[in-house]
Amino acid sequence: MQYLVHSDTETLPVATVGQEMHQLVARLYPICRSITGEGVRQTLRILQEYIPLEIHEVPSGTPVFDWVVPKEWNIRDAYVRNEQGEKIIDFNACNLHILHYSLPVRKQLPLQELKKHLFSLPDQPQLIPYKTSYYKPDWGFCLADEQLQQLPEGQYEAVIDATLEDGSLTYGEFYLPGESAEEVLISCHVCHPSLCNDNLSGIAVATYLATALATKKNRYSYRFLFIPVTIGSITWLSRNEDKLANIKHGLVLTLLGDEAGFTYKRSREGKFEIDEVVEHVLQARQKQHQLIDFFPYGYDERQYCSPAFNLPVGCLMRSRHGEFPEYHTSADNLDFVKADCLEESLDVVKEVTTVLEQNRRYLNTNPKCEPQLGKRGLYDSIAGSGSNWKSWEMAMLWLLNLSDGRFTLLDISKRAGIPFHTISEVASVLEQHQLLEPFTLTS
Amino acid sequence: MQYLVHSDTETLPVATVGQEMHQLVARLYPICRSITGEGVRQTLRILQEYIPLEIHEVPSGTPVFDWVVPKEWNIRDAYVRNEQGEKIIDFNACNLHILHYSLPVRKQLPLQELKKHLFSLPDQPQLIPYKTSYYKPDWGFCLADEQLQQLPEGQYEAVIDATLEDGSLTYGEFYLPGESAEEVLISCHVCHPSLCNDNLSGIAVATYLATALATKKNRYSYRFLFIPVTIGSITWLSRNEDKLANIKHGLVLTLLGDEAGFTYKRSREGKFEIDEVVEHVLQARQKQHQLIDFFPYGYDERQYCSPAFNLPVGCLMRSRHGEFPEYHTSADNLDFVKADCLEESLDVVKEVTTVLEQNRRYLNTNPKCEPQLGKRGLYDSIAGSGSNWKSWEMAMLWLLNLSDGRFTLLDISKRAGIPFHTISEVASVLEQHQLLEPFTLTS
Amino acid sequence: MQYLVHSDTETLPVATVGQEMHQLVARLYPICRSITGEGVRQTLRILQEYIPLEIHEVPSGTPVFDWVVPKEWNIRDAYVRNEQGEKIIDFNACNLHILHYSLPVRKQLPLQELKKHLFSLPDQPQLIPYKTSYYKPDWGFCLADEQLQQLPEGQYEAVIDATLEDGSLTYGEFYLPGESAEEVLISCHVCHPSLCNDNLSGIAVATYLATALATKKNRYSYRFLFIPVTIGSITWLSRNEDKLANIKHGLVLTLLGDEAGFTYKRSREGKFEIDEVVEHVLQARQKQHQLIDFFPYGYDERQYCSPAFNLPVGCLMRSRHGEFPEYHTSADNLDFVKADCLEESLDVVKEVTTVLEQNRRYLNTNPKCEPQLGKRGLYDSIAGSGSNWKSWEMAMLWLLNLSDGRFTLLDISKRAGIPFHTISEVASVLEQHQLLEPFTLTS
Repeated sequence: MQYLVHSDTETLPVATVGQEMHQLVARLYPICRSITGEGVRQTLRILQEYIPLEIHEVPSGTPVFDWVVPKEWNIRDAYVRNEQGEKIIDFNACNLHILHYSLPVRKQLPLQELKKHLFSLPDQPQLIPYKTSYYKPDWGFCLADEQLQQLPEGQYEAVIDATLEDGSLTYGEFYLPGESAEEVLISCHVCHPSLCNDNLSGIAVATYLATALATKKNRYSYRFLFIPVTIGSITWLSRNEDKLANIKHGLVLTLLGDEAGFTYKRSREGKFEIDEVVEHVLQARQKQHQLIDFFPYGYDERQYCSPAFNLPVGCLMRSRHGEFPEYHTSADNLDFVKADCLEESLDVVKEVTTVLEQNRRYLNTNPKCEPQLGKRGLYDSIAGSGSNWKSWEMAMLWLLNLSDGRFTLLDISKRAGIPFHTISEVASVLEQHQLLEPFTLTS
Repeated sequence: MQYLVHSDTETLPVATVGQEMHQLVARLYPICRSITGEGVRQTLRILQEYIPLEIHEVPSGTPVFDWVVPKEWNIRDAYVRNEQGEKIIDFNACNLHILHYSLPVRKQLPLQELKKHLFSLPDQPQLIPYKTSYYKPDWGFCLADEQLQQLPEGQYEAVIDATLEDGSLTYGEFYLPGESAEEVLISCHVCHPSLCNDNLSGIAVATYLATALATKKNRYSYRFLFIPVTIGSITWLSRNEDKLANIKHGLVLTLLGDEAGFTYKRSREGKFEIDEVVEHVLQARQKQHQLIDFFPYGYDERQYCSPAFNLPVGCLMRSRHGEFPEYHTSADNLDFVKADCLEESLDVVKEVTTVLEQNRRYLNTNPKCEPQLGKRGLYDSIAGSGSNWKSWEMAMLWLLNLSDGRFTLLDISKRAGIPFHTISEVASVLEQHQLLEPFTLTS
Repeated sequence: MQYLVHSDTETLPVATVGQEMHQLVARLYPICRSITGEGVRQTLRILQEYIPLEIHEVPSGTPVFDWVVPKEWNIRDAYVRNEQGEKIIDFNACNLHILHYSLPVRKQLPLQELKKHLFSLPDQPQLIPYKTSYYKPDWGFCLADEQLQQLPEGQYEAVIDATLEDGSLTYGEFYLPGESAEEVLISCHVCHPSLCNDNLSGIAVATYLATALATKKNRYSYRFLFIPVTIGSITWLSRNEDKLANIKHGLVLTLLGDEAGFTYKRSREGKFEIDEVVEHVLQARQKQHQLIDFFPYGYDERQYCSPAFNLPVGCLMRSRHGEFPEYHTSADNLDFVKADCLEESLDVVKEVTTVLEQNRRYLNTNPKCEPQLGKRGLYDSIAGSGSNWKSWEMAMLWLLNLSDGRFTLLDISKRAGIPFHTISEVASVLEQHQLLEPFTLTS
């Protein structure tokens, strides 16, 4: 499929959706995001070019459940200079060079002293690590281990021009109303600096999903959250407890740009409809994928699935959190995420929403014996090609037989062994003939 | 086992029950049955020689749920004659030659025109297919493909001397009252012409089951239906809705004369007692068999298991509907069904009713610790041969331990790993000693 | 581990607990126990040196449910003398030589007559069998089959100096109160004569478990029963129906001194907490063991698990009842049970009580999102060694996530894949920090 790239400034050549998504990742890549600060705001403002995102600011010091909104961290410049005055580590070259949430510093110090503030990865000597110190005051620089090993003795100047002051925590929210107040929550994190798979891929997929859904009439309402991880979801949950009862399904989107097969981490209960639907969609694709049970570690599903909320929220990934070599290093870059992988991820998430939208329960309006399909012309009208006829007829019979209010279309699809789309399509035809009517469980 | 053949006209030599059943099949084979008409009446009148069948007539035009009882079809003669005046297709030679429910016709027409009304099986060139056109007005003949291919060009005369007029739909019903009003439904179809496995085998097994049960005192009442498929069960259900609550178990009997292993198609719920009992009986025989889940296609279980009724009715077969080469062809003839297969099928169905009859729940009247069996002489009185003693003693202990009202004898048999008949026999002894008393779940 | 042997008369050299237990078995070995009589009293009096056992006497003739307490049987001497006046079978040499509950006898009789009262094991010709005739009046002697085969023709004198008179049934009971009135029942049988695995091993393990628990502060109360099999548990149950509601878990201990792997026979329901806990303990040891379902045969679990009581009581063994060659023969002797096997059995039972004691449910006091562990110092205080840190952190997160009252610590341990002891230890730390509070299901 070819789309026109969405852009406010210039007309680009026609690109695939995946290429568009990769271009969005590329725009966001240089920005130094953290859990608070200008980087998040700048990111959300770019996303506003795509979707009408509402940007929320929550003041530092605001209590949010057991936590408090932290001070805002902003950084303008940071470097280490050697005796020759050369910047041997330069934040402007790569924002991973800074220990995030570093306190401001400006001092001369010998190598041995400096080394206490230098972080590297001896096992991956060419990569710069991503490190943070959100809740323990500290300062530091990250660099490739092979550079660290070659630093000559001598005096160095370490400069971090940063501020950690009262300000606010920033997050973005886009609510797309549907026919029903029941909603699907889509959540991604926006607090990592120049890391493409770990945060930018999720942002891109969520954004493009939102633009796609916005052009359609949806049964569910959709709520998209672009938040700093942990403190962001805690903040949002503490401010929106009254909305939680409406959340019927949800997904945390992350790590969706690399080439690995999909991994779905189930909700805490493991048996919510979202779990069934994602598993169905992944299985129907017949490509390698992994289904894993919930565990209380990872991304914001930890908060959504905390015991008082226990929301029906799972997490869709490709590579798993912490389990790929590029994780939290400078190798999680623009080469690591691929346009076609981003697009495939978007397709899967769209398919999940399609199945959610269509996955109703029906009542057979004629439940005593089979209705006479022939007199309604249903044998002729539905059967398009001869080869499909058998599964169309069986889909009619299964739908009529199982539409007693207990079974969703997905349940019927699984029991019948007939693709969900056929079941859904045939259900519509039967509904048009008043042989099925929508049914809602009153719980 | 040797029985005297039941016959009203002459004394036959002593035959096995299987041979008797095969003779019944042979008597019914030539009759041209359809969903209505004289063929069904003639068939039911023959069955009245065996069991006191009540014959019901439901007028054409009667509304039955979403359907209407069709016009009655009767055929006297039908043939195709060539230019030499030879009957090259003759209904009197084989009633499969006619497209069932054909409209009357009498016309001269060239081969090319005639061919639009000829049906054959190119993949099985020697067999005559069985075809119907119940709800779409048409006429036609069926013949072997090798004959069709050799028909010379020329003029032909097609004659169908049939009537399609208001009349009635005919079905047979035999109700055998038992101790309880709770009943077991046995249903078979009587609407196929000269096809032995597909309808005559089920008729024979149902008839001989009825004669066997009629000589015994039964706990359950039994209702036998001999009906045209689909419209027959729809008609019966629409006229007997008030009786359905009494149906505790049921079986559709069909395709029971060929040499294949048994196939049991479970009820829609899959976990009714009939499902457990048939599965148990088939497993206990330790021969190859198949257990398959319900699907809304096949025979009258489609109607009994429609959502508003959801009756505990499964379907017992050998070869499966549509899945054997002789299905709906002239090869489903008297050679295809075997006397010993019919008898084995009868034995299985009788065993199912035996287990249903005996499969009660009991309450241990002495549930605090074990009762003292020795003082009641139970160690001596029961143990027949020494080798059985261990399983008799264990049967006593299991029955006493598990008779808390939750478990049927079949449940106990399975958990104990002791044959059902031993469990049932020992339960009777314990009941005689007032150590067990029957228990009924009040649902 | 080295303990000082508990002894009232002399100071023994330091022995392992297993050696101590074996010494207790050796003291009890010569005593001629039966379901009533002085042998049981003598046994219980020795156990009183270890634990403050209460000895109960229930008069002969007392009705106990469907049974009656039998007469008391005591035996002083018994022998068979040949024509030369030699005692060729002598009760004083081995108390298995007597058919237990033999009536008194003193008569001369020829070999053929005598043989009707002699019992041997042709398949194990060197072993003396253990036989009883509790409820059918009889007399007899047991001997090795090879001795029986060589007895010369002639006259013999059979003397049994025994009494079967009104008296009482004797059992021992030790109740160890804990914080809660909820109790754990530990039951073993004391009615077998010189058989080491089949009764003495269970007695030794129960006694040493009692001494171990008596030195600790326990959450549960513990009730230890030392009873004659069947009639003993029936008698105890009939006198203590009001206490049964307090029994939350229980174990029958038997056959715990041989070298076979452990066998756990589940409670009748199979899913009580005791079943889960024993299975967990055996699986965590990673040695070969067997888990078998309840069946109404064996030891006193038959009575505890009778339908009116259905107590949560399983049975822990090594070799299984009736399934080892030494069972109920003179080969079940002091060589057959091993000190280290007795000690290993004690360790397993102690571990079961440890897990039962700790296996609580908790409520997360802070169930909305994760609590901030850092500000409570929980990241630092718990993490002992670096290598354990990950499982400590994960244990914290799992406990907080799953402590909604539905899950026990054992449930959480299994779902998290973290050892129970880690989960239990971390739960205590979280309880100290008021992040968890104990929760009791109100059933």
